[in-house]
Amino acid sequence: MTIVPDDLTGRPVVPSTGRLRPLGLREVRITGGFWGQRQSVNAAATLEHNLSWERRVGWIDNFAAVVEGRVGRDRRGREFSDSDVYKLIEGMAWEVARTGDEFAAASIEELAKVIERAQEPDGYLNTAFGHAGQGERYSDLEWGHELYCYGHLIQAGVALLRTGVDGPLADVAVRAADHVCRTFGPDGNQGVCGHPVVEMALVELYRVTGERRYLDQAALFVSRRGHGVLADVEFGRGYFQDDVPVRDADAFHGHAVRALYLASGAVDVAVETGDDELLAAIERQWAATVARRTYLTGGMGARHMDEAFGDDFVLPPDRAYSETCAAVASVQLAWRLLLATGDARYADLAERTLYNVIATSPADDGRSFFYVNTLHRRRIGGLPAVDRQHPRAESGVRAPWFDVSCCPNNLARTFASLAAYLVTADDDGLQVHQYADASVSTRLAGGRPAGIEVRTGYPSDGAVVLRVTETSPAPWTLSVRVPAWAADGAELVAPDGTRQPVGPGFASVTAPFAVGDELRLELPMRPRWVRADPRIDALRGTVAVERGPLVLCAESTDLPAGRDVDAVQVDVDAPLTTDDDGAVLASGALTAPGDHDWPYAADAGADAAATPARIRLVPYHSWASRGPSTMRVWLPTLE
Amino acid sequence: MTIVPDDLTGRPVVPSTGRLRPLGLREVRITGGFWGQRQSVNAAATLEHNLSWERRVGWIDNFAAVVEGRVGRDRRGREFSDSDVYKLIEGMAWEVARTGDEFAAASIEELAKVIERAQEPDGYLNTAFGHAGQGERYSDLEWGHELYCYGHLIQAGVALLRTGVDGPLADVAVRAADHVCRTFGPDGNQGVCGHPVVEMALVELYRVTGERRYLDQAALFVSRRGHGVLADVEFGRGYFQDDVPVRDADAFHGHAVRALYLASGAVDVAVETGDDELLAAIERQWAATVARRTYLTGGMGARHMDEAFGDDFVLPPDRAYSETCAAVASVQLAWRLLLATGDARYADLAERTLYNVIATSPADDGRSFFYVNTLHRRRIGGLPAVDRQHPRAESGVRAPWFDVSCCPNNLARTFASLAAYLVTADDDGLQVHQYADASVSTRLAGGRPAGIEVRTGYPSDGAVVLRVTETSPAPWTLSVRVPAWAADGAELVAPDGTRQPVGPGFASVTAPFAVGDELRLELPMRPRWVRADPRIDALRGTVAVERGPLVLCAESTDLPAGRDVDAVQVDVDAPLTTDDDGAVLASGALTAPGDHDWPYAADAGADAAATPARIRLVPYHSWASRGPSTMRVWLPTLE
Repeated sequence: MTIVPDDLTGRPVVPSTGRLRPLGLREVRITGGFWGQRQSVNAAATLEHNLSWERRVGWIDNFAAVVEGRVGRDRRGREFSDSDVYKLIEGMAWEVARTGDEFAAASIEELAKVIERAQEPDGYLNTAFGHAGQGERYSDLEWGHELYCYGHLIQAGVALLRTGVDGPLADVAVRAADHVCRTFGPDGNQGVCGHPVVEMALVELYRVTGERRYLDQAALFVSRRGHGVLADVEFGRGYFQDDVPVRDADAFHGHAVRALYLASGAVDVAVETGDDELLAAIERQWAATVARRTYLTGGMGARHMDEAFGDDFVLPPDRAYSETCAAVASVQLAWRLLLATGDARYADLAERTLYNVIATSPADDGRSFFYVNTLHRRRIGGLPAVDRQHPRAESGVRAPWFDVSCCPNNLARTFASLAAYLVTADDDGLQVHQYADASVSTRLAGGRPAGIEVRTGYPSDGAVVLRVTETSPAPWTLSVRVPAWAADGAELVAPDGTRQPVGPGFASVTAPFAVGDELRLELPMRPRWVRADPRIDALRGTVAVERGPLVLCAESTDLPAGRDVDAVQVDVDAPLTTDDDGAVLASGALTAPGDHDWPYAADAGADAAATPARIRLVPYHSWASRGPSTMRVWLPTLE
Repeated sequence: MTIVPDDLTGRPVVPSTGRLRPLGLREVRITGGFWGQRQSVNAAATLEHNLSWERRVGWIDNFAAVVEGRVGRDRRGREFSDSDVYKLIEGMAWEVARTGDEFAAASIEELAKVIERAQEPDGYLNTAFGHAGQGERYSDLEWGHELYCYGHLIQAGVALLRTGVDGPLADVAVRAADHVCRTFGPDGNQGVCGHPVVEMALVELYRVTGERRYLDQAALFVSRRGHGVLADVEFGRGYFQDDVPVRDADAFHGHAVRALYLASGAVDVAVETGDDELLAAIERQWAATVARRTYLTGGMGARHMDEAFGDDFVLPPDRAYSETCAAVASVQLAWRLLLATGDARYADLAERTLYNVIATSPADDGRSFFYVNTLHRRRIGGLPAVDRQHPRAESGVRAPWFDVSCCPNNLARTFASLAAYLVTADDDGLQVHQYADASVSTRLAGGRPAGIEVRTGYPSDGAVVLRVTETSPAPWTLSVRVPAWAADGAELVAPDGTRQPVGPGFASVTAPFAVGDELRLELPMRPRWVRADPRIDALRGTVAVERGPLVLCAESTDLPAGRDVDAVQVDVDAPLTTDDDGAVLASGALTAPGDHDWPYAADAGADAAATPARIRLVPYHSWASRGPSTMRVWLPTLE
């Protein structure tokens, strides 16, 4: 078959309709700052780190083992380990598009060779099933993850097609997709995968190839699910969203990553098929989830047991799950909804999630990661061994690798492609959704050139300057998102110097811009007290502090020796100030409750001694960077 | 070999030394009241219910499948299902001792036949390993549960020996124990079981047979554990207490039932070997656990993921685990510590656990059960299907059976043997630890007869009358526990009518009692507000209400239609009263917080409308008895 990529601008998501048009990695470049630093670390360290671990733990050898007929005996890793190789390849493809990275290009080429040879003639490709000594193909749709692995293979293939990276993997992905359509089509296997992702992958392959069957198959998977087509499991069918049809659910539920990948695929299907009811259903579920099932950080998924959304308002800060991959999935979903609707709320949640979950996971050196992102850590853990895999759910330390290592690879592909999630265009202008030092260059309707350079010290500083670098004589519109958190005090300075207060949503200037014109957004960066809905029982009597897009936290590292964050109380009537290092200071106390044989009594807590103290608050994303610590986001108020 | 039972009084635990001497089922009989009702339901319904489910789901057929050589193909149930047959047999043995129940006696006889035939000539007995098509014996000590199954087999055997029920099962148990000693002795397999219980079973078999090797093997298992002899697992070695030696731990940790069974076995070993250091270690761990890791109900284990203790003060009421079996294990441990030390605190916790976890689990008809006992249920569940197994962790409804059905069988053996946990003796008298309508008859030192009849309306009523029914001319001492919760207002009325205030611990009268003499304990039954240690973050700003030994709760059933327990607030400055049905009433309000797109804001909750209301509070153990409901124990206080 002949594949005609839609374009080579390097866009992960390319809806054929929608309110806003995404820009690709060749149209938006991050040039420095908070996110530029993280992209550099990702390129210089994480990609190689992940690849070397995947070699070390045998996940790459599994493909060779298939070719050599020894996979039934030699296979290592969990049943879904193929998918992590594919996620990493996707990340490397975006990195090649971003920087021409030679290590990434060479790695893709090398991996492609071994993966290509492991594909069966009919397109089947999986190292955990279907070979001597293994289970039959598709004998365990609940847990086998075969379609999930195809999903990530296809996403990698799409990334390769859209970045113009040569090699056989795109064809491998297309053959796998064709195999899926043949096997799971209307008259085939009536199942779905226990872990969604193939839905959005197939839609994107449709978008890049124009082959309608991929879209039809994705739509079929979305509509099949929710009718009990999978077997019941201990966690219940809700775990993999097979308990209620996608369009009938009230809110996202079950396993958080599964729910958010499924919703992303449903949006893709809805947009391409004109299924406005389905799109509205996902918007409604998103709104309910954000209002009742989301952490202050944007983190999703409260439960450790099944990595799942809890009931409404069950959002315990200690033992929060808030999986890194759920944050990645949430940003992917928000992006799709933003493109479809143009509603700034979706970009608001993406910002919150990027700064407070996705930026929290990796260590500064890009070689260890939080799999879960708790909001309250009570016990100081040890430093993790750097030479072994770790349990994923330990939340006190960043670890180099996990037996389930989706998060490091999901981060890699997110950071490499991050520029594609910052700015959109429509016929008449540009919309800046996320602030970063960046250069933007694209064409508006009629081929009119439009380019800007974005300069900001965000998130430390609240000034964002958009300088026009390319323009044309006719007026066009430059828009910039004003976050909901900046409702009180945001101002926009137009190129002519006029200053006006702006509220949440988009602030725009329409003008016949000249090169050098500057639009300046000034966001209020004073720290803010935040309280929680009283129905979130776990947060009663506490407050949090935010500054700009950042959630702050108290960390034991900043307390007197031997004192712990459980001793912290803050005085919400005293002003928040800032110290010389830019950290926020709250007035409050350190308490020492008395110890008792039984912790429940009429006067429990009455004997707690409190000594006045200044409580230093640092960005949550930086916690545990100075060594193991205890930490809390939600701070009890002075009694 | 010749087995000489220590006696046939029907005692589950018979230490050779200790501060207090336990009395058996033939010495203490429950004659009615709160626990008498539950014993009757257990005998009339639960034993048969459990047996019929074990047949239905194939757990009993597994033994026949071994004999018929088809177990590798036909086996059903989890790897530890044998143990549930043994637990049920143990419960039936106690029931035969209690009432001579013919169904129980006949069932034991029938089960014994099939189990006996499944035992290998060398004593090995397990339906999940060691046969054609199965894993090798002891090839998976982490998860295989073979020694765990022996533990319950041996406990059943001990119960049969101590109740004089005839049949081959006691010999089967002894052969299995001998096999364990040969296989896991000092020069044998150096492993331990991933799930403790065999330790306490072996000590009890030592106590009943006098064979030292069983004690030595138990001591060996206790000392081996904690040195990383088991493989690491995703939950970490702490899950099965293999991370730190038993005597070095600070508090109970890891899987709650495992931790509590292990501690019980360690107490048994310590008592029989004079290892005071080990006993002191368990006492210390118990105290730390009760002070920092135990729910108000006495429930233990906060985490769903690994059914484990959480960190100190992590005790979320919603999503509490508080497994029924952990409560059973906690009572077993408390009983051992009480016998060893005579400290009333252990009986205090047992009382709390019995009334608020163990009494909570079964439905009134004894045919459905809570596996977990949450303290806050936010969502109304459906009524469970009566014809299928249920996931164990669903917490909103009592279910007839679970794929892991330890709880129904643990309840069965606990209820059948409950009389043995009420009263002890020492050389000079009787100690009444738990209040129930009961008759007690035993001999003190020198063969002096001592008997009492206990009459009480407890826990509804606070008067407990001990009437002497057997005595001898010399003075002896009648003691009754005064619970810690009754610190304010308990009084003892002596046989001569003198009345005196008594404090927590034991209240005693020493006298040359005459038949008919009455000692009367009067406990203050006014409802009490209770607060939590401020370090339990999840309970900040809430109070609970207790009355006598009962924890109370608010249930949606008692609220106006359409209102939910999440709306409840109570006024702690207003008095608690009692309605005509005996329910407690609190003054307070029903609130309706406003809905917002995002649940965090500077003024979150400020728009909540509150309407004054009387909040009806019912015993926690009765919740969900009137149909599915939402429920909460900890009640937010009026803002």
